[in-house]
Amino acid sequence: MVSEDLLKQINFIKEIDKLKYIQRKTKLINSDRPENDAEHSWHLAVMAIVLSAHANSTVDILKVIKMVLIHDIVEIDAGDTFIYDTAKDHTNTAEEFEAAKRIFGLLPADQAAHFIAIWEEFEEGKTAEAKFARTMDRLEPLLQNASNQGGTWSEYQVPYQKVYEKKKIMKEGSETIWEYAEQLLNESVAKGILKKE
Amino acid sequence: MVSEDLLKQINFIKEIDKLKYIQRKTKLINSDRPENDAEHSWHLAVMAIVLSAHANSTVDILKVIKMVLIHDIVEIDAGDTFIYDTAKDHTNTAEEFEAAKRIFGLLPADQAAHFIAIWEEFEEGKTAEAKFARTMDRLEPLLQNASNQGGTWSEYQVPYQKVYEKKKIMKEGSETIWEYAEQLLNESVAKGILKKE
Repeated sequence: MVSEDLLKQINFIKEIDKLKYIQRKTKLINSDRPENDAEHSWHLAVMAIVLSAHANSTVDILKVIKMVLIHDIVEIDAGDTFIYDTAKDHTNTAEEFEAAKRIFGLLPADQAAHFIAIWEEFEEGKTAEAKFARTMDRLEPLLQNASNQGGTWSEYQVPYQKVYEKKKIMKEGSETIWEYAEQLLNESVAKGILKKE
Repeated sequence: MVSEDLLKQINFIKEIDKLKYIQRKTKLINSDRPENDAEHSWHLAVMAIVLSAHANSTVDILKVIKMVLIHDIVEIDAGDTFIYDTAKDHTNTAEEFEAAKRIFGLLPADQAAHFIAIWEEFEEGKTAEAKFARTMDRLEPLLQNASNQGGTWSEYQVPYQKVYEKKKIMKEGSETIWEYAEQLLNESVAKGILKKE
């Protein structure tokens, strides 16, 4: 007899397949093909493993990986919000909270509570794990835009100052990665693919 | 000064973006859109977390996650081999080993050695972690094909017996998940979407 718990877990696993259709604004490295949320989440998880020694404080890497793997699952219901969207706040909305309850709620109750807690911790961004996970989330599109003649910075005319404001949070997760990121932003300005206001 | 190690790590992170272009034969759930290796790897990682309690023996879940996140990276150079391909053996080839050396070799030496060891452990399939990781790798396309009127089973006329032979290894990672998988295979036969020889 297959247990109720396993059937719930399989149902969740099938539901989150939809993350592969949620398209982001940023394009893949040296490409004009938009990235989807599943690919993005995979990339952040590998990055977190590879870069963990650069975290400002010791992090529970398993928790960081869980955060980045599931951080965008709410977008199955709530959709992706562009980080430079001026009309809509990127942070945690009521819609996203409803999505978390519905989607993680497909799991057995203890797992649902665990995943919702991990997602909320990421969104709040206060713990060392959440800060490092968010550093990964900011770094990946930076690498992508820098490889794509400015990518979404050019496409949506986002100036250096606005990019800098969104990216500087990376410093809270990793001083050394932020140092690299600042250098890449300066190089992008020098190349003319990121404009100062 | 950005360290040599960080520059190597960034170089690796950019290189593995190519996994997003490696197309698998199986299609997404209820879909005719082929899955790519990055999406597949993300899905297996979440599945491993969600299903870890079903492992036959206690597993180091962090190691399982690392395995599934990186197990297909060699396909950037070596390409995806269809599991039911009769002309080419699916297992670990010289080409894949060269790919592992080149791609993981972009990382600082200690990390390169760590990733290659994890990849080899997965390929050998002997440890509890490798067995459970391989159970995830067999389960996902089973869910996909069952949702797609037989998917690649129908498309490439793969009979039940051959599918069963490839899938039964799942039992080594999880008896309870294998029980579910057997049931799903039997239902697929009953529905006529998987044919007996």
